[in-house]
Amino acid sequence: MKEITGATKLFGILADPIHHVKTPQRMNEHFARIGYDGVLVPLHVRADELASTLAGLRNLRNLGGLIVTVPHKTAVMDLCDEASDVARKIGAANVLRREPDGRLTAHMLDGEGFVRGLRSTGNELAGKTAYLAGAGGAANAIGFALVQAGVASLTIANRTAAKAEDLKARILDLFPQARIHIGTPDPSGHEVVVNATSLGMKEGDPLPMDVSRLEATQLVCEVIMQPENTALLQAARQRGCKVQYGAPMLACQIELMAEFLGVGAK
Amino acid sequence: MKEITGATKLFGILADPIHHVKTPQRMNEHFARIGYDGVLVPLHVRADELASTLAGLRNLRNLGGLIVTVPHKTAVMDLCDEASDVARKIGAANVLRREPDGRLTAHMLDGEGFVRGLRSTGNELAGKTAYLAGAGGAANAIGFALVQAGVASLTIANRTAAKAEDLKARILDLFPQARIHIGTPDPSGHEVVVNATSLGMKEGDPLPMDVSRLEATQLVCEVIMQPENTALLQAARQRGCKVQYGAPMLACQIELMAEFLGVGAK
Repeated sequence: MKEITGATKLFGILADPIHHVKTPQRMNEHFARIGYDGVLVPLHVRADELASTLAGLRNLRNLGGLIVTVPHKTAVMDLCDEASDVARKIGAANVLRREPDGRLTAHMLDGEGFVRGLRSTGNELAGKTAYLAGAGGAANAIGFALVQAGVASLTIANRTAAKAEDLKARILDLFPQARIHIGTPDPSGHEVVVNATSLGMKEGDPLPMDVSRLEATQLVCEVIMQPENTALLQAARQRGCKVQYGAPMLACQIELMAEFLGVGAK
Repeated sequence: MKEITGATKLFGILADPIHHVKTPQRMNEHFARIGYDGVLVPLHVRADELASTLAGLRNLRNLGGLIVTVPHKTAVMDLCDEASDVARKIGAANVLRREPDGRLTAHMLDGEGFVRGLRSTGNELAGKTAYLAGAGGAANAIGFALVQAGVASLTIANRTAAKAEDLKARILDLFPQARIHIGTPDPSGHEVVVNATSLGMKEGDPLPMDVSRLEATQLVCEVIMQPENTALLQAARQRGCKVQYGAPMLACQIELMAEFLGVGAK
C-alpha cells in the first residue's frame, strides 16, 4: 500500500472483536487500486464505550469516516447526527461519514452491497419475484434493498412471524407501493431466493428453508461467506438452480462504502 | 509497508497542523524494518478538542499509544494518568503509552533522542561541559537529558534569564547533584554547544549565540532540522568546530518511542 503521510485521509472500522475483520485489507487494496491517499485501520471498541469513543473520533479533522460492524450497527444510530431513510427504517447503519464540520451521517449499505453483488454477476432484480428467509439484521438491509431495486414482489419468511410482519410494515412505511407478503419455509414460485439468516454458518445447522421445494429456474443466493459452499447452496445446485455465493456482496460493499465516504481517485 | 489487518496494533500522532508531520513515514518504516505488525496514522486534533479526543482514543483496545507534537505537548500532561519524572518536571510529553487497562502514561523523549543522536554519531556526553542556548520546550527536554547523560556541568543561556533560572531549578529538583550555571551569549569554554532555540529556522533570524566566541575544539549541535545547514552550523564549521545536524535526533527518537511504546520485533 501507499506510504502514510500527514496528508493521508484516515478511516476506521469499529468492531468488537476486531481480529477477524477483513475491511482494512479490502479497503486499503481499493485505495491503492484507485490511487487514493487514504488508510483504513481497525478500531477495537467495546459496546459500552462506543458513545465516548465516537465523541472523540469525530473530532479528528482528517477522519473521512467509519465502517461499523458487530456489535455497533444499531447503537450508532443514536450517536450520529443524520441518517439515510433506509438506515433509519432499519434502525442500523454500517457506515458513518464524517462531514467537514464533524457531524456524522449514517447509512446502511449491506443491502445495496448484496444487490450490486448480484448485478456484478449479471443478475438484475427489477421485475423479479423475490423470497427472503430471515428478518434479522442482514434480512432487514436486504429486504429494503430488494424493494429499492424494483422487485415485483417480496416474500418474507421468518420463524418468528411477528418479526417478518414488523419488517414488512417498515418497508411499506418507506415504499408504500411495494408488494410484500409473509411467507412459509416453502420458497417455490419465486424467481430469486435469498438466505439472510445465519443458518449454514455452523456445521449441523438446520437448513434455512425447505430445499425440496427449490426449482431449477430459481436463482438461490447466500449471505453467508464462511463456509463458501453452504448446505443450502449445495442443495440448490443439486436441484439445478443457479447460485450466488456470499463473497460478491462484500466486494461490492467496499466500492459502495468508498463512494458514500466521498473517496475519489486522485 | 505490511498489510493492515484486524490484528494490527494501532498508533497515532496528535498534531495541529498535521500535513507536515514525518512520524508516520518514519515509524511505519521502523515497524517494517523490525517486522512488527503495527501502523501509525496521523490524527489531526485541535487544541480545544484534545481532552474529548483523548477520552475517546484511550478506549481503543488495539491502540498501543500516541506520539504528541505541537501544540499538544504541554496539554497532554493534564490528561494522562501517569507521567515519568522528567515529563513532570518539564511539564510536557511527546509520547503517551496506552496501558492494557486504558491508562495513559506520558513520557518526554525529545531530549533522550538528542542524546542518542549524538551517541549514534560517536559523541559521548558523560564528563563533558555543555552550553545550552534556549529555555523553551526543546531546551527543557535537552537540558534534562544532558544532565541525565552525565555532563560535568550545564550552562543555560536564554534571553529571558528568569526562564533559564526556572529550568535550572527544575533540573536541580530532580538531579540535586547537577552543576548548573546561567550563561551569557558567549559559548566559549564549553566542550559541547547546543542550539535549542528556534533561531535559524527562518531566513534572517539573528544567530542564537555569539558565534565569534566559538572555538575549534567545540562540538556545535543544532536542533533545527529545516534548513539542515543553519547559519549557526555554517559559522561553526568556518571556525573549525565539529558540527551535529538536527536530523539524527529525530531518527533516534523513533527508536526510543518504539521502545517506550513496547514495540518489539515479532
